[in-house]
Amino acid sequence: MNLIILPVLTGLLGIFFIILLSIRILKSDPGSSAMVEISNAIFEGAMAFLKREYLAIAVFVFIAALVLWAGINWPTALAFIIGAGCSLSAGYIGMQISTRANCRTACAAQKSYSQALQLAFSGGAVMGLYVVSIGLFALSLLYFIYYRYFGLDQATSVIAGFSMGASSVALFARVGGGIYTKAADVGADLVGKLEAGIPEDDPRNPAVIADLVGDNVGDVAGMGADLYESYVGAIISGLVIAVALFPDPITKIKGVLLCLLLAALGILASICGTFLVGAGKKVDPQAALRMGTLFSAAAFAAGAFCLTAFWYNDLRPFWAILFGLISGLVTGFAAEYFTSGNQVKKIAEAAQTGPATVIIAGMAAGMKSTVLPLVIIGLTTLIAYHFAGIFGIALAAIGMLAITGMTVAVDAYGPIADNSGGIAEMTHLSPEVRKITDSLDAAGNTTAAIAKGFAIGSAALTALALFSAFIQVAGIKVIDILQPQVIAGMLAGGIIPFLFSSQSMQAVGTTALAVVEEVRRQFKEIPGLMENQTKPNYARCVDITTRAALKAMIIPGVEAVLIPLGVGIVFGPETLAGLLAGALVTGVPLAIFFANAGGAWDNAKKFIEAGNFGGKKTPVHAAAVIGDTVGDPFKDTAGPALNILIKLITVVSLVFAPVILMAHEFLIRFFLVGK
Amino acid sequence: MNLIILPVLTGLLGIFFIILLSIRILKSDPGSSAMVEISNAIFEGAMAFLKREYLAIAVFVFIAALVLWAGINWPTALAFIIGAGCSLSAGYIGMQISTRANCRTACAAQKSYSQALQLAFSGGAVMGLYVVSIGLFALSLLYFIYYRYFGLDQATSVIAGFSMGASSVALFARVGGGIYTKAADVGADLVGKLEAGIPEDDPRNPAVIADLVGDNVGDVAGMGADLYESYVGAIISGLVIAVALFPDPITKIKGVLLCLLLAALGILASICGTFLVGAGKKVDPQAALRMGTLFSAAAFAAGAFCLTAFWYNDLRPFWAILFGLISGLVTGFAAEYFTSGNQVKKIAEAAQTGPATVIIAGMAAGMKSTVLPLVIIGLTTLIAYHFAGIFGIALAAIGMLAITGMTVAVDAYGPIADNSGGIAEMTHLSPEVRKITDSLDAAGNTTAAIAKGFAIGSAALTALALFSAFIQVAGIKVIDILQPQVIAGMLAGGIIPFLFSSQSMQAVGTTALAVVEEVRRQFKEIPGLMENQTKPNYARCVDITTRAALKAMIIPGVEAVLIPLGVGIVFGPETLAGLLAGALVTGVPLAIFFANAGGAWDNAKKFIEAGNFGGKKTPVHAAAVIGDTVGDPFKDTAGPALNILIKLITVVSLVFAPVILMAHEFLIRFFLVGK
Repeated sequence: MNLIILPVLTGLLGIFFIILLSIRILKSDPGSSAMVEISNAIFEGAMAFLKREYLAIAVFVFIAALVLWAGINWPTALAFIIGAGCSLSAGYIGMQISTRANCRTACAAQKSYSQALQLAFSGGAVMGLYVVSIGLFALSLLYFIYYRYFGLDQATSVIAGFSMGASSVALFARVGGGIYTKAADVGADLVGKLEAGIPEDDPRNPAVIADLVGDNVGDVAGMGADLYESYVGAIISGLVIAVALFPDPITKIKGVLLCLLLAALGILASICGTFLVGAGKKVDPQAALRMGTLFSAAAFAAGAFCLTAFWYNDLRPFWAILFGLISGLVTGFAAEYFTSGNQVKKIAEAAQTGPATVIIAGMAAGMKSTVLPLVIIGLTTLIAYHFAGIFGIALAAIGMLAITGMTVAVDAYGPIADNSGGIAEMTHLSPEVRKITDSLDAAGNTTAAIAKGFAIGSAALTALALFSAFIQVAGIKVIDILQPQVIAGMLAGGIIPFLFSSQSMQAVGTTALAVVEEVRRQFKEIPGLMENQTKPNYARCVDITTRAALKAMIIPGVEAVLIPLGVGIVFGPETLAGLLAGALVTGVPLAIFFANAGGAWDNAKKFIEAGNFGGKKTPVHAAAVIGDTVGDPFKDTAGPALNILIKLITVVSLVFAPVILMAHEFLIRFFLVGK
Repeated sequence: MNLIILPVLTGLLGIFFIILLSIRILKSDPGSSAMVEISNAIFEGAMAFLKREYLAIAVFVFIAALVLWAGINWPTALAFIIGAGCSLSAGYIGMQISTRANCRTACAAQKSYSQALQLAFSGGAVMGLYVVSIGLFALSLLYFIYYRYFGLDQATSVIAGFSMGASSVALFARVGGGIYTKAADVGADLVGKLEAGIPEDDPRNPAVIADLVGDNVGDVAGMGADLYESYVGAIISGLVIAVALFPDPITKIKGVLLCLLLAALGILASICGTFLVGAGKKVDPQAALRMGTLFSAAAFAAGAFCLTAFWYNDLRPFWAILFGLISGLVTGFAAEYFTSGNQVKKIAEAAQTGPATVIIAGMAAGMKSTVLPLVIIGLTTLIAYHFAGIFGIALAAIGMLAITGMTVAVDAYGPIADNSGGIAEMTHLSPEVRKITDSLDAAGNTTAAIAKGFAIGSAALTALALFSAFIQVAGIKVIDILQPQVIAGMLAGGIIPFLFSSQSMQAVGTTALAVVEEVRRQFKEIPGLMENQTKPNYARCVDITTRAALKAMIIPGVEAVLIPLGVGIVFGPETLAGLLAGALVTGVPLAIFFANAGGAWDNAKKFIEAGNFGGKKTPVHAAAVIGDTVGDPFKDTAGPALNILIKLITVVSLVFAPVILMAHEFLIRFFLVGK
């Protein structure tokens, strides 16, 4: 178990590397005062968002920790708090850096292409590497301490609280953040463009900063929390399964160490990958980003091979890891395929016959895009189990998530490039500079699609791994579909993603109304605003949107926690297992459908804006814009929220498994006695 | 077993009653020559559709029968042919009557309200009662003959072919018919309204009859074949389970007879229900139709109580039957709730902010509407199993489907009322008459929504019952979700409905293009068409649309048959069971979502057209029209197609279970020997 020092040290190394990166970013030229001013406004907006969100999370975490303490024990509650705290720190640091790297990227673009790419990517890499480094560092250290004090079994059972902490923050960041993003977007457009008649991104619009903050909220804080949750969940399910499944202490510990060492390897591979992107003199940023990702994957695979062959002395787990890694890449690139090229052209073509056909074509494309990822995940399950049993499923998830550092880096790069373009535009930099930032931004859009696919694939595999861990902990030997309580659980579980999506989409509408009201109020009450004499109160707009978004997520959030608990206690663990399986079976394809339909509509609009089928200001373009507007809450709210949902309900079941079992026993005895 | 004479006789009685009804319809006044002319055109179009479709089905049935003969045995092949043949005859007779009742209803509306209602409903009742009467008659008789010649076990195993025959016809009628309906609708509008600039339903448009035929194709032939499939499938799964599950010949036969006698009771209850609707002097046709349905349900429940209590001497099955019946009514009325009143008002409100918000609101409403039906179906499963084991699940399905005669009657009434309104309009009958036909038509729209919900609920329960039968036949003892091949099967099964929906929606687009081309050709090549001097070639338009629709359904149809076979043979029966469960878990909520979102958009449009939010010719109305256009292929193509899909893949697995088991064994041995 002393080898656990290695993952702890790797985590520290990662954090050290991040500090170097951050210093380099902060030292570079932030640009003219006009650029800094806009960047500062975004920064302040982002902080206003985080402040309000973190306040809500703090209340939630405090109450949940009390429940965990009273219901289970204090180490679980502590693990929960630390797991949540690390995620919060990641969101904070990521937002701090990304909202400062944007003006610096715009400034660097005035000098050279490769410097701009390096800066934007370094900003993303800070978030990406921090997510995995802090996760692995805190998890390994805490696990080691618990192991010393409570022994292996007890330590493993309470460490699941860490994963639940990660899930709780992800719920707020992804669901609340997803609602926030789109509500700010829609609300800003509704009043600004339609009512006040000012152009998009006009600084007089009080919601304009809320809108710009939204990009960072979604792709930096949201995606980071989402993948942090998957990352931590995958590792912890590996620990739980290894300890529950293996016969003797030595193999148990070896299994545990394998999980943690693989994660450490992944961090090292990701750091190497970021060097590659940074060093690239390539003209095509997309190729550089893809190269970095593939290099990290290859380096990790090579390392995993050596680790399993020479240290674990059993090559079979390697195949589970490798196929997990491959299926992550495939789901990612499948998302890219279905949101680009011919697929997008077909949807753009459908725009020629109006908005209805655009909608239908996009929906059909999104539905079709679910096939490949789920077949790959299914095959990976088969292969992983074939080579390494149930432990293999956790290993596949760990293998997939090992390069999370790189994936989040590539994704968080997106909003930095996007914001740098916005700053360049608003401060009237030369067209040359715009060309560079546009090219960086375009690469960011594609990589965002890949990251979204990867996030869903990893959520699916992590949920499967957590599910397997739950089964072990609940001591269920068989979940027989032929049993009616399992069928009923599956049918009921299958509708949870539908209900959750419905609520999150409707929440965008109600939150957008709050934005509209605040913007109207500012227009009316702040004198000289329309005449450019005073600045609107950006922060207040951010704050109100955040509050409304957080309020709108209460019901779905509470459902995600209470439904598994209630079903488990009333109907028993088998029905709960059926429920989790049903939610997974509908949740994953729905999430892929939302993400890819939304992405495809977005790109179809851009394809038309590039001059195809008549270009901008034609009915064809108007039809495509409607498709894009429908797609926005699909891809940025409902889809990502499902990633969280399927993990959260599983991790809640895992953590509360002992309570659920006890309460259900009690209920049954109560009724039997009653009879 | 001699009691089987009762269901046979009940079937004959039903057919006798239908003949009386038909005579009464055909004897009544068809109206003026202008009315007859339009009615004849619809009739001819319907026959052109059936001719082409039946030709395709004949080829398919012939080949499939050969495969069944060679692969299984000739009695299965014969049962398959008879099962398909009865469904074909039902579609033929239903279309014959409904396309003749339309002008007669319009004519009766000139005299009295109640006569018009009676005529329209009698037309629907012919279809509804024929579907169940011929189904029960042929099934009971064939089963009895097989029983005499081959004994109980063998007879029960081959009778599943009957169900597969029903499924095959339903595939064509529902999927091919669904594509046809919407393609004709969209195609007619695209050329007629947009290109040629003539109003909707203009007789100069060569596709106008194809469009009118579409209503009958969907709600008469399609719904009839769908519910016939459920009806037959539920009964047969009851037979299979009773014979496989019960220990001795006496209880086996008693279980078999219970299923058949319940079906007979249902027919009697439906006949009584039709009398009630016919005799009603009510002003509100919707109340009359609902009254008839509820009366049939109550009469059936009372009969079922007596049958189980006094003949079966065990009241427990009654509860399974009763809850099946109730869950059918609840899913139906839930569909009504979510496609009317406040739900629809909210969507209409969303139209004020444009098409995108209409789409999102409709989708959110559709997704939310999945919750209640699936919870009810889940609870029914639990209750049915609790009282009567796996047999209870089949009994619940039979209970739900017992009043199919009434449900189909109420649904098939819809297009007759709709067409009578069209005929009244085109022949310039008085506004008084229009008012009557409009009111009849409005009632038809609501009942259509109920029937759609009922069809999905019954498909779900039938698929569950067939699934249970498959498990019995395949001799599977446990399907453990913890086994990776089951999980992989579930994940793969979950995407089949997504793939199938994607393909059927896209097929509407490609088929509509064929319509557009033919209409353009006729406008160009037939001289004097636009000047009203000659009539267009309606039949050719119907024929070409039908052919294109049938061509477009080849790929999804082949998939629905080959995927379960391939997965079963390669991965074994457990994976196949997982696949079927996965398809059920995603298929049912998707089908409900499609049906209710589509229905809600349709009614939101009508709500605005009634003068709300500005009424017709406003941007609000235009936005609602876009929602309705998106909803059309949802509710009339993709949704109904899923009903068929989930039943078809299960029945294919059931019928081919012996072949699948053998081929899988062979494959495994082959590979083991190869090693």
